[in-house]
Parts: sequence; structure tokens; C-alpha cells
Amino acid sequence: MSEAISTWSTLASRNAALRFIDVNLRGAGQVIFQNNPLTGLFFIAAIAWGAYTGGHLDIIIGALVALVIATATAMLLEADETSLSQGMFGFNGILVGAAVPTVLADGAGMWFILVIGAAVSTVVMLAVSKVMKTWEAPALTFPFVLTTWFLVLAAYSFGQLPIASMGPPALPQAVTTGASPEALSAWGVVEAWLKGPAQVFLINNPISGVLILIGLIVSSPWSAFFAAVGAAVALAVSLGLGASLSDVTAGLYGFSPVLTAVALGCVFYTPSLRGAAFALLGTIFTVIVQGALDAGIAPAGIPTFTAPFVFVTWLFLLPKADLQPHPHAPIKGGILDKKAKS
Amino acid sequence: MSEAISTWSTLASRNAALRFIDVNLRGAGQVIFQNNPLTGLFFIAAIAWGAYTGGHLDIIIGALVALVIATATAMLLEADETSLSQGMFGFNGILVGAAVPTVLADGAGMWFILVIGAAVSTVVMLAVSKVMKTWEAPALTFPFVLTTWFLVLAAYSFGQLPIASMGPPALPQAVTTGASPEALSAWGVVEAWLKGPAQVFLINNPISGVLILIGLIVSSPWSAFFAAVGAAVALAVSLGLGASLSDVTAGLYGFSPVLTAVALGCVFYTPSLRGAAFALLGTIFTVIVQGALDAGIAPAGIPTFTAPFVFVTWLFLLPKADLQPHPHAPIKGGILDKKAKS
Amino acid sequence: MSEAISTWSTLASRNAALRFIDVNLRGAGQVIFQNNPLTGLFFIAAIAWGAYTGGHLDIIIGALVALVIATATAMLLEADETSLSQGMFGFNGILVGAAVPTVLADGAGMWFILVIGAAVSTVVMLAVSKVMKTWEAPALTFPFVLTTWFLVLAAYSFGQLPIASMGPPALPQAVTTGASPEALSAWGVVEAWLKGPAQVFLINNPISGVLILIGLIVSSPWSAFFAAVGAAVALAVSLGLGASLSDVTAGLYGFSPVLTAVALGCVFYTPSLRGAAFALLGTIFTVIVQGALDAGIAPAGIPTFTAPFVFVTWLFLLPKADLQPHPHAPIKGGILDKKAKS
Repeated sequence: MSEAISTWSTLASRNAALRFIDVNLRGAGQVIFQNNPLTGLFFIAAIAWGAYTGGHLDIIIGALVALVIATATAMLLEADETSLSQGMFGFNGILVGAAVPTVLADGAGMWFILVIGAAVSTVVMLAVSKVMKTWEAPALTFPFVLTTWFLVLAAYSFGQLPIASMGPPALPQAVTTGASPEALSAWGVVEAWLKGPAQVFLINNPISGVLILIGLIVSSPWSAFFAAVGAAVALAVSLGLGASLSDVTAGLYGFSPVLTAVALGCVFYTPSLRGAAFALLGTIFTVIVQGALDAGIAPAGIPTFTAPFVFVTWLFLLPKADLQPHPHAPIKGGILDKKAKS
Repeated sequence: MSEAISTWSTLASRNAALRFIDVNLRGAGQVIFQNNPLTGLFFIAAIAWGAYTGGHLDIIIGALVALVIATATAMLLEADETSLSQGMFGFNGILVGAAVPTVLADGAGMWFILVIGAAVSTVVMLAVSKVMKTWEAPALTFPFVLTTWFLVLAAYSFGQLPIASMGPPALPQAVTTGASPEALSAWGVVEAWLKGPAQVFLINNPISGVLILIGLIVSSPWSAFFAAVGAAVALAVSLGLGASLSDVTAGLYGFSPVLTAVALGCVFYTPSLRGAAFALLGTIFTVIVQGALDAGIAPAGIPTFTAPFVFVTWLFLLPKADLQPHPHAPIKGGILDKKAKS
Repeated sequence: MSEAISTWSTLASRNAALRFIDVNLRGAGQVIFQNNPLTGLFFIAAIAWGAYTGGHLDIIIGALVALVIATATAMLLEADETSLSQGMFGFNGILVGAAVPTVLADGAGMWFILVIGAAVSTVVMLAVSKVMKTWEAPALTFPFVLTTWFLVLAAYSFGQLPIASMGPPALPQAVTTGASPEALSAWGVVEAWLKGPAQVFLINNPISGVLILIGLIVSSPWSAFFAAVGAAVALAVSLGLGASLSDVTAGLYGFSPVLTAVALGCVFYTPSLRGAAFALLGTIFTVIVQGALDAGIAPAGIPTFTAPFVFVTWLFLLPKADLQPHPHAPIKGGILDKKAKS
């Protein structure tokens, strides 16, 4: 396998068209942190399968179009070569392109904002990366989340952007009856578990989940392991806390914890027992934050996308070993400090 | 013209009272990035005309009072002299002072929070500037937006702050019938276009728009050009996407794109063809974000003010030429990294 | 008194168990910026008294459990020793632990998220401190606010987290009839004033307010003075602006201004007449922001906690004496600046 990839890399380095394909495949792979074109191919297959079985080919078309536009925008802006060749300017684009046709109805308006949004996702990636780099932290999928929130929220204001599947805006209402996990068959549990990874790409299909896990295995067995465990933890915690059973079985409590588990477990920290405990705390908290944002965002009538993953993972990546919080004592150079001026 | 300004500058440098007037006029001009007292005079005339014809003299009085208080607060806090003399501590204040009487009913409570808010706008300007300077980015009108959001949102909680024109809070509802641009006469189009620049100062009047464009021409023809084009692009995109026709004709889709176009087109980047394409993308995206925030903020029942301009322009100014996003790889000095401590 | 504290400190330095208790007591004291174990003891007594008289012993138990877990988590993460010994990793935890049982009904789910939240509060403290340190500013109680917002908001999504006292989510409605301060007896005014400090710990009890003021006096008379004045200013401004009388008498307009007044008056700036005027402006603005956030957060159906204090105090701490805002001029190294690359 690694030999095939190495042959491909050699080919790609010699041909501009192949290189462009390579960069886009890596962009797809980077959605779950893999700088690997084969992984990207599996992820694209997962989206394609979900789009095909769901009768929504516009989702895979949108995903590919947006991926290419996001990458091309980075080239036009002469973004950093190394990052570009690793697919760092594609992963937000492909998610924008999968999300917009999932949420909005097919039509000229939808394709217009998809194209604009794909290009903008690269600008936002550059902006968020600039800010987060101050603290040596990654942008994660926040460029996708922010850009797509704007795009789909705008649908409420524009008549040419009919909504297919989102909202309606509503005040949060307490779930009165919790889930009855007993109602789930063994196969139902497996299906719900596999849909966790699949929903990372907004796909509600267990086969797509399998394709995504295979895509991870060929690149990083640790990533596949943490993705699988993250989805399982999310399933247990969401059922234990009594989440809506239909949300749980659709994998809607699983996708963000999958990403948190992989990010904290083996991507941004090297795997260790202590790290695993830290990643477990983060993964559990991601489930709680998913429930919180589902309620908090309800009045706006838009999906959370991967915001729970982004917020929790940022909080768990920002702490540094040598950090000394600012004490509860006077601030140097404060606006009232006249000495600081002279 | 430039001779008259130079004579004025000489006079102002010699007399404290004239200097104070000069600083305040420049503060007005900086709302659209112009360090020019004559431009500021035109902008004040635009507000005054809108207030007079609208029968709301409290708007021009409030704008002037808040401008002076914001500038005076900066002096009391001994803020940076150079920035002060360029009017950098006035432009948020004048906007606070124009917005509060537009939204709230005249009365003791309104004037109390207008005065407090004007002083606070300078503190917020210093705070936001400190944060944004980390990435060599400007505060833009975010101090105005943030301060005024707090002031007018508070009106829902305080009986002594009756609301004149805002809300009521409502869940977003999809616009079912798009605008019918055919219903617009040629003059209607021109009027809607001119109201874009006017609404930067919350004025719903085409003559005010003309005064603002003249104010820009005397200082920077490029700025006038980008303002005019930005308003036109906003008109085309918002009509094309089917926005509410009454909002479009009131200029409510135009004011933020006007600011984005000027900021990206010729203020923070030097004018170029590549820059114009970049500014065009940003201007189109600002229209989408305007629609998004209109919906997203509806449950709170407050206006977006210039938030769409601020958010989009920040995203388009933060990317830097030498930026390398943090890769999907371990973070140095992370909290679990024991080696970092020794 | 100071002799007793010094004896205690000597004892604590020699015995690991006493040291752990000392660190936790200081953690309680740091809620109002006091690095003093005796102050912490008074604050814990204030919570205990409020919990006991209110018939909610789970509040004091939760507060202590969360305090210990937050401190222990910091030890496990090998956080900075000096900060740890000053109680900097306890004050957010104790607030999480007091808030969760106040808002949610007793039960397994509540204790589960309380424990998770207490541990997470330390991670969030490290993260927020890392970010704010960029501008030499403290994290304040934002880690508590953010963590607890997620925890209690999640209650709307999880059946095993029944709500005891919060919400229901509602669109903001303008207060039609302002408060009638005349209806308040002299004792009613005193009681409302004392509940300001008490509500810092979410306690609706004037005796607890007295205990908190005593706790401040033994550590820092200036802090006690600014807390008392801050509560009085908040009372005057909220009544003057016509806030809901029941909110005012419950101290709900007082707790954030108390913290702002102490922070700006004598903790992060050294006490001075100019500083007192600055703190007064900040304290008045905190009352306005409290009213604003009460309205703005109503659709989500959660309390503001100390967010008004955090936001205003950050805005008033970030300005620096030597700050020069980024001018309205081209940005160096901007993405379109080709020269910056070579």
C-alpha cells in the first residue's frame, strides 16, 4: 500500500494535473487530519455512496466542486506552498460543498453561494490560521463552520435560497422523555456507531462510516482506533444522559466526538496513557457541548456542524506546559499607568 | 481645495479650540476611513440633512454630543497623540450617537446611556485595537457595534428606555416571495443605490448619500469609486438573491458592502486589479452575511449595525502573505508535553 | 489576624494535606481576587449559609466537590506551581459547583456533569489564560461562565438532566412598567444591596452578603470598600433605569458590578482618584450590560452568570498606555502584498 502511494507521489510531482488531483485528494483526507491521497479517495467514496443512496447527487458534486475551488483560490492567493501541497486549503472547502446542498434546495442561488462560499472558505482558513497561530493552535474546521453558518443562515433572508432540510427556528424545549436504549437492537447500536464517522461529512449512512474507517486505517491505525472509540464513547454518553433517540441513531451525537478523540488522542498530542485520559475527558465534554449547542442554536434554525468539536478541541489544545495565568494583581502598562509612558 | 485644507490645518495647529474641532471633524471622516476635516463636515451635513428631513433632530444632536464625548474621553485617558489627532477616537462615538436616538425614544434614560456609551466607545476602541494589533489589523467599527448592541439590547430590560424603532424580537422566518426587481423604477434603483452610503450613518435619505459621496471625492476619489461600486454590487446581489424589496430600497443591504469595498479596495490594500477581484469577493460575501445576521439576530430584536462589514473585512484582512497554517501535527509545549517543562 | 494566617501558612507548607486544604481555601478566596485562605473560609461559609437556609445542601456539597476536583485536575496536569498555590485553579471550579445544583435538579446526571465540568473548568482556565496572556490580561471568571453555559444549556437536550430553576426560553419582551423604588423600605434597600455580593456565589441571602464583605475586609479593606460601593452604584443605576424590581431586590443587578468595581478599583489598577472614576464608568456600564445580556440570552433560556462582569472588565483592562491603534492605511504583509514574500 505504502509503495503504491509512494509511486503516486512520484508521478504527481512530475505532472501538474496529477499534482492538482493529489492536492485535492489530500484536502479531502485532511478533514480527519490525514495528509494522504488514498485516505482522501476513501472519504470521497464515502460521500459519493451516501449521496447516491440518498438520491442527492448534488451533494457529491457540490463537495468536489467546492474542494477544487477552495484549492484553486489558495493557489491564486499564492498561499504557503508546503501547506497547500498537504491539502490544508481543501478540507474546509469540501465540507462547505457537502453541507450546502444537504441543507438548501438545488437551484441557481444554491450553486452561487456554494461557489462563493468555497472561495471564501480559503480566505477564512487563512484568517483563522493567522489568529490561532498566535497560540500555536490549528484552525481545525472552524473556517467551514463559520462560512457555512453564514451561507445557510442567509437562506432565511433570500427568496432564491429555498431551504431543503434545516430548522424551523424554535425556542429550545427540554426533552421530557429520555432515550430508551433498550429499544435499540444490537445492529441498531452498530449502525448508530458507524454513522458517527459518516456524519463528519454530513452523511447518514453506515456503509459510508465503514469507508471512512478504512480510509483512516490505510493512513494511521491510531486515528482509526481513536475515531472508533470516540464514536463509541459518544454513543454511551448520549444514551446515558437521555438524548433524543432519533438524533443518536442518526449519528448526530457522534461526529464531533469522533473528531475530538482523533485530534486529542493522536494528532496534536503523541499517543500515551495520560493523553488517552485527557482525550476521554475532551470527548465526553464534546457530547455535552453538542447537546448544549443543539439547544442554543435552535432559535437561529441552523445546524451546529462541527462547532462542538472545534470549541472543545481548541480548549483542550490551548493549555501549554509552561503557562502561568495572569495573577490577580496590577497590570503593567495599563491605561491608567502613567509611568509606563515615560 | 487642498490649499484651503492646508490653511485650516495651520490654523488648527495654533489654536486649542480649533484643534479640538479639527480632531472631531476628522473623527467624523474616519467613519469611512478619511483623515480629512472637510470630509467629516460633509458626513455631518449628511446626518444633519437626514435628521432634519426625518423630523429627528435628536439624531444629529446625539451624534455630535457623542463625537465630542468620545474624543474628550480619549484625551482624558491620554491616548496616543498621533492617533487622536487623526480622529481615530471619534468615529465610533459619532456612530453610537447617531444610532441610539434612531433606535430609542427621546428621554432622560436615552441621553444617559448615550453619554455613557460615547465614553465607553473610546475604552472599547482602545481594547479592540489592542487585540487586533496582534495581527496588524484595525478595530474597524466594531467598538461602535459592540457598545451599541449592549446599549439598545438593554432597552428590553429597563423601563426608562422606551424603544422607538427596533424589533420586536422574533424567530427568523424564510422569505417566501423574493423581491421583484421589475417593480423598481430607474429612479427607485438610483435612490436605493444612494441610500447605501447614507445608511452607513443610519440615514434613510438619498441626498445624504450624495453628500457622503462628495465628502469622499474631496478626500479620496478611489474611496468614492469603491463606495459607489460597492453599493451597486450590493444592490445587484441582494436583488438577485431575492432579498426583501423594502430592505433593499431602504439601503439596508448596501451600507456594509460599501464599507467592505472601500476598506478592501483602496484603504488597507493598495488599489490593483487583483485587489479589486479580492474586494469584489468580499463585497459579495458581505451581502450574504448581511442576510445571515439579519436572520440570526432577529430573536434578540436588535439591528446588525455594521457587523457584516466588520466580520467580513476582518476575515479578508487577517490573511498574511507569509502565513503557514499550523499543520495537523503535534503541538510544541502542549500541556501533556513533559519535555517542554525541563 | 495576620499572625494566625502566617502560622497557618507555616503549618500548610509542612504538611501535604494541610497544603491541599490551603490551596482550596485560597481558590475560594480568588473568586473575588483574594489570595487568602481565611477569606476563602468566609466565602465558603457564605455559600453554606445560603444553601442551608434555602434547603439546598447540594449547592454547598457541589461547590466543595467541584473546588477539590478543579484543584486536583490542575495538579494532575502539572500546572504552574506558583499559580496553583495561590488558588488560581480553584475559583472557577467552586463557581461551577455552586451553579450546577442551583440550576439543575439533584440526580445522577447532574452530579455526572458537575464532576466533568469541574475538571474541564481547569482545562478552560488554562486555555483562556493562554489567550488572554497575549494582552497581559487575566482570565477572570470566564472559564466558569463558558463551562457552565455549556453544562446547563445541555440540560435542554438530555432527559437525564431535569431543570430545577432556569428559563423557560423566551423572546425578550420590553419591560413596560419600570420599578417603583418608592415601594422599597429602607431595610429592603439594605437587603437588596447586601444580596449583590451574595449573588457572586449565586446565593440569594443578605447574611451571606455580610459574610462575604467580612471575608473581604480581613484580606483587603479596599476590596471590601469597592465591593460595597459597586453594589450601591448598581442598585442606584438599575432602579434609576427602571429595571424589574424583583430582579433588583434579589441582587441580580448587583453581583457583576461588585466584581467589576473591585477588579478595576483596586485589583488590576492601583487605587487612585482617576482610577475610581474609570471604575465608576465600568461599573455603570456593567449594569447596562447586565440588562442587555438578560435580554439577549433569554431565547436560550440560561442565566448570564458573571458574563457582564467578564466582558466589561476585559474591555476596561485591555487598553494599554502606549497603544497606537492600527491606522486606516495599508497593512504590511497583507495577502495581496507580493513584496512581503521575497
